[in-house]
Amino acid sequence: MSDNIQNTYKNRQNHLIKAIQKSGLDGVVVNPSPSLIYLTGLHFHLMERPVLALFTPSMPPVIVMPELEKRKTEGLSYPIQVFAYTEDPQSWAGVFTSAFNQGSPLAHIGIEPLHLRYLEYNFLKTALPQTSIAAAEDIFSGLRICKDEQEVMAMRSAVAVAEKAIRATLPSIKPGVSEIDLASELTIQLLRCGSQSELAFEPIVASGPNSANPHATPTQRKLSHGDLLVIDWGARIDGYISDLTRTFAIGSVDPELARIAKIVKEANAAGRETASPDISAGAIDHATRNVIATAGYGEFFTHRTGHGIGLEAHEEPYIRGNNSLILKPGMTFTVEPGIYLPGRGGVRIEDNVLITLEGADCYSTLDRDLVVLG
Amino acid sequence: MSDNIQNTYKNRQNHLIKAIQKSGLDGVVVNPSPSLIYLTGLHFHLMERPVLALFTPSMPPVIVMPELEKRKTEGLSYPIQVFAYTEDPQSWAGVFTSAFNQGSPLAHIGIEPLHLRYLEYNFLKTALPQTSIAAAEDIFSGLRICKDEQEVMAMRSAVAVAEKAIRATLPSIKPGVSEIDLASELTIQLLRCGSQSELAFEPIVASGPNSANPHATPTQRKLSHGDLLVIDWGARIDGYISDLTRTFAIGSVDPELARIAKIVKEANAAGRETASPDISAGAIDHATRNVIATAGYGEFFTHRTGHGIGLEAHEEPYIRGNNSLILKPGMTFTVEPGIYLPGRGGVRIEDNVLITLEGADCYSTLDRDLVVLG
Repeated sequence: MSDNIQNTYKNRQNHLIKAIQKSGLDGVVVNPSPSLIYLTGLHFHLMERPVLALFTPSMPPVIVMPELEKRKTEGLSYPIQVFAYTEDPQSWAGVFTSAFNQGSPLAHIGIEPLHLRYLEYNFLKTALPQTSIAAAEDIFSGLRICKDEQEVMAMRSAVAVAEKAIRATLPSIKPGVSEIDLASELTIQLLRCGSQSELAFEPIVASGPNSANPHATPTQRKLSHGDLLVIDWGARIDGYISDLTRTFAIGSVDPELARIAKIVKEANAAGRETASPDISAGAIDHATRNVIATAGYGEFFTHRTGHGIGLEAHEEPYIRGNNSLILKPGMTFTVEPGIYLPGRGGVRIEDNVLITLEGADCYSTLDRDLVVLG
Repeated sequence: MSDNIQNTYKNRQNHLIKAIQKSGLDGVVVNPSPSLIYLTGLHFHLMERPVLALFTPSMPPVIVMPELEKRKTEGLSYPIQVFAYTEDPQSWAGVFTSAFNQGSPLAHIGIEPLHLRYLEYNFLKTALPQTSIAAAEDIFSGLRICKDEQEVMAMRSAVAVAEKAIRATLPSIKPGVSEIDLASELTIQLLRCGSQSELAFEPIVASGPNSANPHATPTQRKLSHGDLLVIDWGARIDGYISDLTRTFAIGSVDPELARIAKIVKEANAAGRETASPDISAGAIDHATRNVIATAGYGEFFTHRTGHGIGLEAHEEPYIRGNNSLILKPGMTFTVEPGIYLPGRGGVRIEDNVLITLEGADCYSTLDRDLVVLG
């Protein structure tokens, strides 16, 4: 088992090298990001001290990093060339230049556009002035999009922890409690139930009119009778996240709000039932959207149906209308249709789904009815 | 009071415009970052949907953002031009191009190298192919480096919350508890004591030999008699952070470990006492380093003495040897000398300091002796 884990990084690096060779690039450069963790197991904060790892077919990976974090590279199960720099920023460019110019010349390298910052990009350009640098997100998503058994196990645990945490939070959901206090209580329960403290994301707790904002941030607003309450939360286990949403009613709500809750529940079910290998990501979006449009609320479902999850809270595959990407076993993503009535309230129901050989498996089992609390 | 807060953003934008004009740039572009929050009060997740705000002297700020977050820009106290895009990524480049080409032509714009990603950089290059883009971190740090009264108040609260949280965690510090469990308990106490749930950073809880790693991540290692235990933690209030470190002994420790704890305490005091307006940031680093070097442990103090704090956990001013930046009232930073004996253990003592008109004010009052627990 321990051997397996040790070989995991070497195997992933080998897959990366094959993908680099296939792409026509000479190498890829990664800064602290989920892909760096996936490939090396190395965690770094994204800070003012730049860290870059270079992967090429011709030599072991090269990493440029602060001297004071060098111990992180001791006892790794794979070879790596460490170039450490001191606390003097004036010296950093020289270290990058030495590190990146010792193998065969690099004409084309790929980077992760969602992670590489201008800071690292600039050191890279200075170290390799003749090299063309291009977005290569497909190489990384290609490696990471289909989860292996161990990754699936972690994600199942992350869903179980999230479900346990929301159950422990239910008694706190009542009129008079603020969104911020509820978000804090839910976070506490996530940690108590075993989530890593670097959560997937801060919980969304959005009540009343705020629930009509899909990306609301918790406010001082207090829950009150007649509110819809959208809670969007997740845990992290072994680096892997869960991402669930349920909507609650605080006392009895307006009949139209209860009706949209039923429609969203049907849309969520349609999405989960459509999920299967060899269909397109877009087909799931069509399935959920069709239910909501048929019920007359199409214009109030303002976002895509879902997104991939894994080491990141948003990754490939994106479940949106025009995405022709074909789903394959091991892909994991959210199904999260919603209806948002501006100024009144919104409903979203989100589950985490795994494509299997035969169809799909939903990690979450929580009730999807509009549960009345308070 | 509410008027003051409303005017805050407009005033900060005016200061930014003056700084832009002084710099010779035509504008600056900001993606979701503490500077965007500082200038606009707008919070966005850093995700696959790019968000960029353009500030120029010739017109109100322009923001490009997802349609589904548009409600965040309602009811703002200052004018802003919102360009929203749909869920179809194919359409995004066109929206950026329209948004950034409506005022006077932009020959030179500045960006934040620690925050702007290749993703946004690429949209910017596509929208403004003739424009030169340059790192302009000095403009932003110039705006933010001296804190006003309201910011100082938030930071004082963030220190008070952090101190309350560590006191509540002390009973859990005993042999047999793992670093991870202790980090989780401390995080829970931070939230219970009133920290925002987006913490400053994940607590460092490093015991025994792990404490010799200044940037350790909590592990499954269990505390044991004879350990040094370094805890580095902080809270966040109104967006502003605190960042403290204390070192504890689990039972009685090796006399040399107790000795380095005394030396670090002296170094910390020397740093805090040196802090005053009109001296250089480097002078504080010299003061702490001198104590440690004189005691014979110079080579084991492997990092700079500190860093600025505010909306970010690491920002200007950096307290390092060759930094000639002159300290001014309102600047806030950490003083955090340490001694790390590889394989044996380390000590760090970190406080948060504000430069005042007369000298300096330390926000934290926690005991700096090596407290023996367990």
